[in-house]
Amino acid sequence: MKLNCDLGESFGSWSMGMDQEVMPHIDMANIACGFHASDPLIMRDTVALAKQHGVQIGAHPAYPDLVGFGRRSMACSFDEIYSMVLYQLGALQGICQAVGEQVRYVKPHGALYNDMMQQPEVLRAILQAVVDFGASQNLNLLVLVMATADNREQQQLADELGASLMFEAFADRAYDAKGLLVNRRIPGSVYHQQDQVVAQALAIAKGEPIKTLAEGVEVCLKADTLCVHGDNEASLQAVKAIRQALNAL
Amino acid sequence: MKLNCDLGESFGSWSMGMDQEVMPHIDMANIACGFHASDPLIMRDTVALAKQHGVQIGAHPAYPDLVGFGRRSMACSFDEIYSMVLYQLGALQGICQAVGEQVRYVKPHGALYNDMMQQPEVLRAILQAVVDFGASQNLNLLVLVMATADNREQQQLADELGASLMFEAFADRAYDAKGLLVNRRIPGSVYHQQDQVVAQALAIAKGEPIKTLAEGVEVCLKADTLCVHGDNEASLQAVKAIRQALNAL
Amino acid sequence: MKLNCDLGESFGSWSMGMDQEVMPHIDMANIACGFHASDPLIMRDTVALAKQHGVQIGAHPAYPDLVGFGRRSMACSFDEIYSMVLYQLGALQGICQAVGEQVRYVKPHGALYNDMMQQPEVLRAILQAVVDFGASQNLNLLVLVMATADNREQQQLADELGASLMFEAFADRAYDAKGLLVNRRIPGSVYHQQDQVVAQALAIAKGEPIKTLAEGVEVCLKADTLCVHGDNEASLQAVKAIRQALNAL
Amino acid sequence: MKLNCDLGESFGSWSMGMDQEVMPHIDMANIACGFHASDPLIMRDTVALAKQHGVQIGAHPAYPDLVGFGRRSMACSFDEIYSMVLYQLGALQGICQAVGEQVRYVKPHGALYNDMMQQPEVLRAILQAVVDFGASQNLNLLVLVMATADNREQQQLADELGASLMFEAFADRAYDAKGLLVNRRIPGSVYHQQDQVVAQALAIAKGEPIKTLAEGVEVCLKADTLCVHGDNEASLQAVKAIRQALNAL
Repeated sequence: MKLNCDLGESFGSWSMGMDQEVMPHIDMANIACGFHASDPLIMRDTVALAKQHGVQIGAHPAYPDLVGFGRRSMACSFDEIYSMVLYQLGALQGICQAVGEQVRYVKPHGALYNDMMQQPEVLRAILQAVVDFGASQNLNLLVLVMATADNREQQQLADELGASLMFEAFADRAYDAKGLLVNRRIPGSVYHQQDQVVAQALAIAKGEPIKTLAEGVEVCLKADTLCVHGDNEASLQAVKAIRQALNAL
Repeated sequence: MKLNCDLGESFGSWSMGMDQEVMPHIDMANIACGFHASDPLIMRDTVALAKQHGVQIGAHPAYPDLVGFGRRSMACSFDEIYSMVLYQLGALQGICQAVGEQVRYVKPHGALYNDMMQQPEVLRAILQAVVDFGASQNLNLLVLVMATADNREQQQLADELGASLMFEAFADRAYDAKGLLVNRRIPGSVYHQQDQVVAQALAIAKGEPIKTLAEGVEVCLKADTLCVHGDNEASLQAVKAIRQALNAL
Repeated sequence: MKLNCDLGESFGSWSMGMDQEVMPHIDMANIACGFHASDPLIMRDTVALAKQHGVQIGAHPAYPDLVGFGRRSMACSFDEIYSMVLYQLGALQGICQAVGEQVRYVKPHGALYNDMMQQPEVLRAILQAVVDFGASQNLNLLVLVMATADNREQQQLADELGASLMFEAFADRAYDAKGLLVNRRIPGSVYHQQDQVVAQALAIAKGEPIKTLAEGVEVCLKADTLCVHGDNEASLQAVKAIRQALNAL
Repeated sequence: MKLNCDLGESFGSWSMGMDQEVMPHIDMANIACGFHASDPLIMRDTVALAKQHGVQIGAHPAYPDLVGFGRRSMACSFDEIYSMVLYQLGALQGICQAVGEQVRYVKPHGALYNDMMQQPEVLRAILQAVVDFGASQNLNLLVLVMATADNREQQQLADELGASLMFEAFADRAYDAKGLLVNRRIPGSVYHQQDQVVAQALAIAKGEPIKTLAEGVEVCLKADTLCVHGDNEASLQAVKAIRQALNAL
């Protein structure tokens, strides 16, 4: 069970996230590519930091919306999404190659991630871009999607296009019976107690079902990786606790 | 003597240049990378057009200045220039790879090009980025610089860093005794007569000296490629005429 | 019956529209404010051109999306829309004031315009911004919305907020029975015959019903202004023909 | 002796500065206008905060360079600078007017500020924009420039154009014999001791000469306002100490 974390989300003179502190505790760094956050210099430094800690590098492409941090859905066409993913993926790969590293996977960011889970054409554009990018280099980049109670639709599309998926779950968020995240605005949807976070992380890691928020039933998620956060001191402590608990399995 | 041309300089809904018309007549396409012009979708279409005509693809990186079209010098640091070149080069390479193409060379754009010719640290940042980009892939990308009466400084820096240069000259511009372009604001600095343009193209191709504007003396330029333009009908006709004249050599 | 036209939609080095040619024939210039097109210098020149021809100046605010020309809907909050309208309106007003002119009205652009017609909260944010902008200066700026078969919802909201509306219709587009524009992708939705365009302009000006595309029934639009276009020679000729026909009424 | 401070320099999801904490202790808020920092929503909130504390609002226009925070000099033309100042000034004024406030002065930011002090044409473009902006409204906006040992050149230009200047000095920076700031890279150029900062603030407020760093001679600055900072806890404490010392005069 790998830990992935969004990193390199500073921009110009603005700082965001505790990248230095969280990097030693994760396996996969989702690095912003300049469309929702980051710039070429910050990308270079973030890639160097990941390399130093032996952390796998993933591209974290987004809609072109710095002021909205890529969190506002934009009505983009298939061709626009296909091209913007290629562009961002290539830009990060260029910076990686300069230090002998490689992009290993792609995790769409924010509204692009949400749209991908709800609109098959968005997912198709992303998968096609990743497949085409890797084809001429015999690179098989993974695409991270959200683990739900039923990922058959995503898996079918990936199979059709020859793409490889990786599924991620969240230890600090409540789920519903469909294995979807409960909206952040609903009380109880975000876990702030470290015990609760660690418990859910362990349950997911062991393939055990987790209890849903509203229905009180259980749902089972097949996940390859957990998404963790490096935003602040509390989330950093949670990452360490999850890591320790997973190591003790 | 190859012909290189700036292409893919449209942006979003705005169109610029006669890319379709000029592409069949050139050897090297300098493709904008989104910082002074172009966007991911236009880059994809321009790469496809170049591929269709068997034209070599070069990255045309610039300062981050869309509204100024990359023509305004910006006081950027070594690290900023190094990183922005890597980013743009990688982005174009990503789009190339998706269709089985490769970036073959790099020609800095506008103010970045001018600054590179005057400030050794700017050239060093660009060359270092190109060398580092290619190193891990055993790619030897050429960097286009301006042919002057004396390119020893640029060549020395390239040798030091292990970079490969390619020199370009201009058939439609007047030169001074140092082999530098006469400022556009000076009358006579830009040749509008096709005969004059073709004559200078041939002289440069044959290694013959060309007459300078003000001094009336001659200057010799060692050039590997001529920069041509696809802005309008007149420049398109000039490209065809130069191509025909060169073929007849 | 006034003619309004989107103008000032060039950007940096990219040119768009026949502003010089169309300005003498219109009454109201919807001037882009830098979010979907234009920049401060182009805004200044467009304002000067409008002043020269005695054309009323309107702000043409949009979502922040240059590469998408403001045509892609973005999921923005009330506060974001409210603030971005104020910002763009103020920016244009600043440029107007420097030459003794005033912004007289506001016409949202592209996706913001479409969203305003479908989402009451978007319209509310726009109207509130315009009302608040004008309040301290005793300015009563009009807001242009689309004339449909039933504008009661928009009028009610405007009344509630103390905003003043102005209704626009299109001479070159087919309508449906609800008085909505038929989607551009449907054959026959855009009129290319000048006779047909002029006929619809006259019908709307005289308050006569117009025939709908699919249903063949008639619909009546109460419009204060017609939206015309200055994109190319054909649309310019249409503007002249409409103007001439209206003058002859 | 008024205290002015750069504020509203957050951007989108990125936070910068202790605006809430410093606002109660200053007289003049230099509010970023979206070109080097800030966005419409942050501008609105910053204007509201200034209004709440009765702090005068100034526009803080900059070169269009978010990633470089407006600190990189850009080779812009007179017309470009003139228009970008009008645009930013108008945008902030629009947001001010919506809450019944007014922009009272203009302080250029970063590289634009430095360029203005060294290149008369840059200062001329800024002053002309401010004068033209205010003319039609009978507004007399002040322009903040740096107090040096000899401001005759700036004053002469302002007189010529009918602009009103205001001079600012720095309590936490070492000066040279010309009354210019010693470069930040030189040891001792930035005062970190609160006593030293307060002492220089008092000397400037009383019109007493201050000791220069290298030469050890004294220089006299005629200043109307001191520039203070709200970046962190230390600078906040310095602001409070300066305020207290000035009040005790």
